[in-house]
Amino acid sequence: MTDTPLLDTVNTPDELRHLALGQLPQLCRELRACLLQTVSQTGGHLASGLGVVELTVAIHYVFDTPHDSLVWDVGHQAYPHKILTGRRAQMPTLKRQHGLSGFPKRDESRYDDFGVGHSSTSISAALGMAIADQLNGKRHSHIAVIGDGAMTAGMAFEALHHAASLSADLLVILNDNDMSISPNVGAMSSYLSEVLGSELYQDVRQKGKAVLKHIPPLDGLAKFVEERAKDIASANNLFEDLGFDYTGPQDGHDVLALVATLKRLKTQSGPKLLHVKTVKGKGYCRAEAAPIDYHGVSGFDVNKGLVPSQPSNAPTFTQVFSAWINHQAQQDSRLVAITPAMREGSGLVEFSQQFPNRYYDVAIAEQHAVTLAAGMACKGLKPVVAIYSTFLQRAYDQLIHDVALQNLDVLFALDRAGVVGEDGATHAGVFDIAYSCLIPNLIVMTPSDELEMLALLQTGYAYNGPALVRYPKGKGDLQQLPQTPQAEIAVGQSKLVRQSSLAPSQVNKLAILVFGTLLARCHTIAATLDATLIDMRFAKPFDQARIEQLIATLGHTHVVILEEGSLIGGVGAEVADFVHQCNAATRVKRLGITDEFVPHGKRDEVLAGFGLDETHIAQQIQDFFFN
Amino acid sequence: MTDTPLLDTVNTPDELRHLALGQLPQLCRELRACLLQTVSQTGGHLASGLGVVELTVAIHYVFDTPHDSLVWDVGHQAYPHKILTGRRAQMPTLKRQHGLSGFPKRDESRYDDFGVGHSSTSISAALGMAIADQLNGKRHSHIAVIGDGAMTAGMAFEALHHAASLSADLLVILNDNDMSISPNVGAMSSYLSEVLGSELYQDVRQKGKAVLKHIPPLDGLAKFVEERAKDIASANNLFEDLGFDYTGPQDGHDVLALVATLKRLKTQSGPKLLHVKTVKGKGYCRAEAAPIDYHGVSGFDVNKGLVPSQPSNAPTFTQVFSAWINHQAQQDSRLVAITPAMREGSGLVEFSQQFPNRYYDVAIAEQHAVTLAAGMACKGLKPVVAIYSTFLQRAYDQLIHDVALQNLDVLFALDRAGVVGEDGATHAGVFDIAYSCLIPNLIVMTPSDELEMLALLQTGYAYNGPALVRYPKGKGDLQQLPQTPQAEIAVGQSKLVRQSSLAPSQVNKLAILVFGTLLARCHTIAATLDATLIDMRFAKPFDQARIEQLIATLGHTHVVILEEGSLIGGVGAEVADFVHQCNAATRVKRLGITDEFVPHGKRDEVLAGFGLDETHIAQQIQDFFFN
Repeated sequence: MTDTPLLDTVNTPDELRHLALGQLPQLCRELRACLLQTVSQTGGHLASGLGVVELTVAIHYVFDTPHDSLVWDVGHQAYPHKILTGRRAQMPTLKRQHGLSGFPKRDESRYDDFGVGHSSTSISAALGMAIADQLNGKRHSHIAVIGDGAMTAGMAFEALHHAASLSADLLVILNDNDMSISPNVGAMSSYLSEVLGSELYQDVRQKGKAVLKHIPPLDGLAKFVEERAKDIASANNLFEDLGFDYTGPQDGHDVLALVATLKRLKTQSGPKLLHVKTVKGKGYCRAEAAPIDYHGVSGFDVNKGLVPSQPSNAPTFTQVFSAWINHQAQQDSRLVAITPAMREGSGLVEFSQQFPNRYYDVAIAEQHAVTLAAGMACKGLKPVVAIYSTFLQRAYDQLIHDVALQNLDVLFALDRAGVVGEDGATHAGVFDIAYSCLIPNLIVMTPSDELEMLALLQTGYAYNGPALVRYPKGKGDLQQLPQTPQAEIAVGQSKLVRQSSLAPSQVNKLAILVFGTLLARCHTIAATLDATLIDMRFAKPFDQARIEQLIATLGHTHVVILEEGSLIGGVGAEVADFVHQCNAATRVKRLGITDEFVPHGKRDEVLAGFGLDETHIAQQIQDFFFN
Repeated sequence: MTDTPLLDTVNTPDELRHLALGQLPQLCRELRACLLQTVSQTGGHLASGLGVVELTVAIHYVFDTPHDSLVWDVGHQAYPHKILTGRRAQMPTLKRQHGLSGFPKRDESRYDDFGVGHSSTSISAALGMAIADQLNGKRHSHIAVIGDGAMTAGMAFEALHHAASLSADLLVILNDNDMSISPNVGAMSSYLSEVLGSELYQDVRQKGKAVLKHIPPLDGLAKFVEERAKDIASANNLFEDLGFDYTGPQDGHDVLALVATLKRLKTQSGPKLLHVKTVKGKGYCRAEAAPIDYHGVSGFDVNKGLVPSQPSNAPTFTQVFSAWINHQAQQDSRLVAITPAMREGSGLVEFSQQFPNRYYDVAIAEQHAVTLAAGMACKGLKPVVAIYSTFLQRAYDQLIHDVALQNLDVLFALDRAGVVGEDGATHAGVFDIAYSCLIPNLIVMTPSDELEMLALLQTGYAYNGPALVRYPKGKGDLQQLPQTPQAEIAVGQSKLVRQSSLAPSQVNKLAILVFGTLLARCHTIAATLDATLIDMRFAKPFDQARIEQLIATLGHTHVVILEEGSLIGGVGAEVADFVHQCNAATRVKRLGITDEFVPHGKRDEVLAGFGLDETHIAQQIQDFFFN
């Protein structure tokens, strides 16, 4: 007898739908236990999944998945969904190379209707499906489950707005747990809790009409109030203003009530919004008490909870950024920091405490974040936008049109650049060098280690115009944060790491030019081949003088260019062309991310898959040099 | 004595502020006449400017510009602002090379607080300025003027949401003229007109509390109703739901009333929204009757109005797209068309009439447009997203994360690719080749003329995955639309336009590889130099077999690569690298848009500025070939 006897009988939504209604609470308990047990071993996203156990069960119980469409927004809450849709046995492989993805993925299961990872896409996608089924004459339901954090992104608003105008048959479930990843900021948050959750509001909605019926007809008052009853009862709500039929807020942990509500909504046509209140981390007291800590976890002992990690002085790149911005903010009162709902991930917790008036968490709103920074820069502030590489894609036009075109003084601190590991393709930051170097006025920096990162942040901050510093997830080799700030570096200036001792007249002479932290993987091979090794530091402008010297004066015949980013459109292509302009006979080899999306797995495994581990880098350079 | 005696005395907002209130109606009449007279000669955006004459005068009269910040959204309505801020004499140079920009531009005037062109950036920018002034201890007002069309973009919502949470001192003026460029679609439009404009709503807002005061105290009814009065009077509005203080709707053509309202709002702190109803084209009856026709005009006789242009069979690229999609939709019921509020500009008017059920104008909502298409493709539709090159930047993440990563079958028809001319940097489409080629799974096509455009649209449509066809503004050489559809082209296959007659053993032999419509500018020079001329057609995948053959078999020693797009990150860099892999000694020259933002002017003038007119192309190729 296992701990999960009922869940053991449920491997698909079909089997779930054969359970009696009364069995669902037990199933929820077992599903929650299974989830906790699994994630405590594999690591991954925990608190969000715990919060939607009942919702997941109720949706699959009521709706005919996969014929009805179900789109999870962001998708880190979809582990219970994975367990119920035939993937329980594979859960131990979660986020591992060749294992289950940490997010819904279309080619992983026919129950994953839409691949997600970035926030706020679900309503658009589900609406597209609803329209398609309608045009194809198919009657299915279409459900988007979206958190209150994700609801603040403009894209969600665009989709709500369009859906309402179409009278599309769409159910949006707003999973309101009062936080995105960080505690929620902004008007939406207070709106959801203070207005929609208020007793007054509920009272008006529920009793309004009934009470008003019994008003005595005094001086046209009844008619007046009756007419207003419609406003009181239906036009009083942001979602209803847009044309959605609104239900809620409802307890998201009462599975029986959820089933009843969903059954009713299933038969109702048009755009509907169900507002569900859930507790992030529900059912595991430690996660309920510290939902941010338990948002994404490494493996841990369920009985003991998370153990504070061993104090280590070795900082992550994020912590190095954190130290820099805290220090710089003390020096310069013009500095302001902006994050689109990534305070923890971007290393701004301490900043937000030390400089609350200069700290702007704009919620999940990358577009606004960047143009807000542009506006601030117009008036003499020095904004630093701390953002993940993959999320800056969301504000690409704002970067071009609002910041770079006006040559405004904004510094972008791009975390999670390059291969990120377990989160896979949706979170990889492999396009940023390519998509940013093409933008006029912008300077693009790729530090090779933490000290250089400090120097380049300083450089970008001092530079009077738009600048971008990209750095990877995790740690480098630095064992301790330096006490003193690093001096600026002249814009565009590379660094000679190792000089070949070969004479310029040598038949074959190699230079290795590296953009970013993969530099550390080239020391040995450079020494082996007596190659020159250059830390390029700036992807734009790159150091043309250095390259000319390497080719024309120092007689290098072979050049390897290495970047942790897309080869197509990357800086390597520009450098290669420049090398050939210097000397057509010079041979060039480019290493980087080939033309495919990056799979998930450990960062080093994934890099190895692209031939970017130390062994393969060495092998490829040797093959190039000796052939 | 001129027709504009009062306006002649007003060259700056300071001078405007010295007028007596009673003089403002006359000033508005004169300003409107001046605007009409100017634009009828220069061409440009007319109807939007006519609609905001009173608003422009009132804002500058009440606020202390340029110390108070004024951000015009999109900016095509800012001509009256330009006239009042010292640029009246330069208005005849509007949109001409080295003349005034058609949009506000920071380096053109200190009264242009923020450069615009794309929609929905104004609230973010003005909020950034408000925060900056607040931190700097300066007390200024900050005003964003945004149309009802622009208000539908998610970015505007993100900014409203954030502004409300900050209690920032910001005035958003919603200029509601019931249309963006096309008639407005969607929930916002009906919300603004049906709800906020309704007599009921106004009645409730204005009289609600007063009426309720006189209710006799029956059975607690008074208390109940009194409590609800707050809901009736204040929580009944989308903007107030978000935390804005709402005023309106107000007649946007009553300058005296506007001044009074603005004076009141100026003294009021916190986020405020003034809803103004205006008539696009106001005061010029022809423009009022046909505001879409008079949105952007060429020069015309004010007394006669626009003359229908001479019927010409020669189609624009937009019309060629239009013919293709109408024909294809008849063949295939799975085809659906999506536009983000660009029905006219994208050539979808006829489609929207012929296939109303398969036509989706999502309003100004590029992000949603692309992910909506992704959702549709998941369910077997074949969506065609018709969008301008520059606006796809707004949906860059959705293109990568929602469409390409899932390898979904969506066709992007990219109009206004390359240099667009008079609209300048904000509307230029010079980045798309670079930013799209780096995306895995996507194929990218650059037709050289209209017939090939038809064939490549067909190819992209038939291709089972994401595809993009980019084509320029205006006309090519085609004199008449072809009656028959064009056959598909094998993906990646280039076209030999002209073969050099030189032997492979020739010391110098030239190949010119062209991506796009600049091909026509290369025929003469190719003949002169007896060069091989290739129409590459596909930027991704580009025709490697052809290039290998040119180099290895046919012995070309010199290769010119030409694209109407950013050189940095462009396809030319990849092709150059490939050429060098084929034969390191082959010399390569790349032509395209250098690393700067594209200025405004006539398309041919601007291209000439980048050395891309026929003369300069020939000259550069000759210099390269003979040196």
